[in-house]
Amino acid sequence: MTHHQDNSKEDVKNERHQQRQQKLKDAVETKVASAQEERGVLMIITGNGKGKSTAGFGTLTRALGHGKRAAAVQFIKGGWECGERNVLQKLGVDFAIMNTGFTWDTQDRVQDTLACEQTWCVAEKMLADAELDIVLLDELTYMVAYHYLAVERVVSALKNRPAHQHVIITGRGCHRALLELADTVSEVQSIKHAFEAGVKAQAGFDY
Amino acid sequence: MTHHQDNSKEDVKNERHQQRQQKLKDAVETKVASAQEERGVLMIITGNGKGKSTAGFGTLTRALGHGKRAAAVQFIKGGWECGERNVLQKLGVDFAIMNTGFTWDTQDRVQDTLACEQTWCVAEKMLADAELDIVLLDELTYMVAYHYLAVERVVSALKNRPAHQHVIITGRGCHRALLELADTVSEVQSIKHAFEAGVKAQAGFDY
Repeated sequence: MTHHQDNSKEDVKNERHQQRQQKLKDAVETKVASAQEERGVLMIITGNGKGKSTAGFGTLTRALGHGKRAAAVQFIKGGWECGERNVLQKLGVDFAIMNTGFTWDTQDRVQDTLACEQTWCVAEKMLADAELDIVLLDELTYMVAYHYLAVERVVSALKNRPAHQHVIITGRGCHRALLELADTVSEVQSIKHAFEAGVKAQAGFDY
Repeated sequence: MTHHQDNSKEDVKNERHQQRQQKLKDAVETKVASAQEERGVLMIITGNGKGKSTAGFGTLTRALGHGKRAAAVQFIKGGWECGERNVLQKLGVDFAIMNTGFTWDTQDRVQDTLACEQTWCVAEKMLADAELDIVLLDELTYMVAYHYLAVERVVSALKNRPAHQHVIITGRGCHRALLELADTVSEVQSIKHAFEAGVKAQAGFDY
């Protein structure tokens, strides 16, 4: 093959690339042009895979980077260390923590229901606070699944929140009523997980 | 129904809850006991849904909260504002940015390949740096999919990295060779997206 032939082949490749990208650009621009509404988005991140809570906290980090005001409610989580909380609390994010720990550790339906009620009460105030641009309700789904919290109360608080406020709900097995209300729903599926291959949960990566 | 009957029904519910949670606890403890290895994990977050990059940056936030050293490489991304970068750079995270913008905007295969090469060169140094506890390769998958970067080079750099170093790769359509090498793979599926319903990409939430 001569050098000249090589060059023409590359030219064809480059031209095809340019044409494909122009088509893509047209498609993207049409979509962007038809998406002009600005308002608070309800996003749910559910499914069995790793990355739901980190996506939630990552969005708070993103919001802070634009000078937004953020708050986080951690359902289930106990008093143990949480890397995100260590960082975000210092940066001004308001945290409410249910502080009971896993349901399989407490095994106490009455106490857990009470703790959920107290934590939800704080969440409701956040969802009514027009000064908050974004609220993360981390692992809320389990509260509804365990009947610690009626889904109607969650739906009502979400519907009545300030119009500009974004809300992110994370956790497995999200209730259908919340999925229906949501603007954006991502389902994180676990294809594989290091833990299943014998790797321990590690500080700074898994919590 | 008498008050006495009400109480017994609740008692039965509470007892059943306790028994179910004890079973769950046993299952969790068996799993935790068999996962004792501590080492750097390669995690890939792929799929079409929203939340891949925020999960990546959220994990960096988590790592910082435990005093870990983190770096991020942003492939594709241009010079525009990025909420996470605004926050994490100030907290000491090293950033390398490809700075070309979307392929449909540049439409230039030769220039994009060169920019990718330069950015990958920085990424390789990070993947060889034992002082880094975690490296995020944001949107790397597209570089391989577009043949800007040979997958063998990525595999080689990942295999030869320090044993304790965690790596996160994000982006759609991840190459099979990377998926096979990964310890943890999450696929984020889009169930619905506000953008499709006419909501604009908003600062502090979408970027």
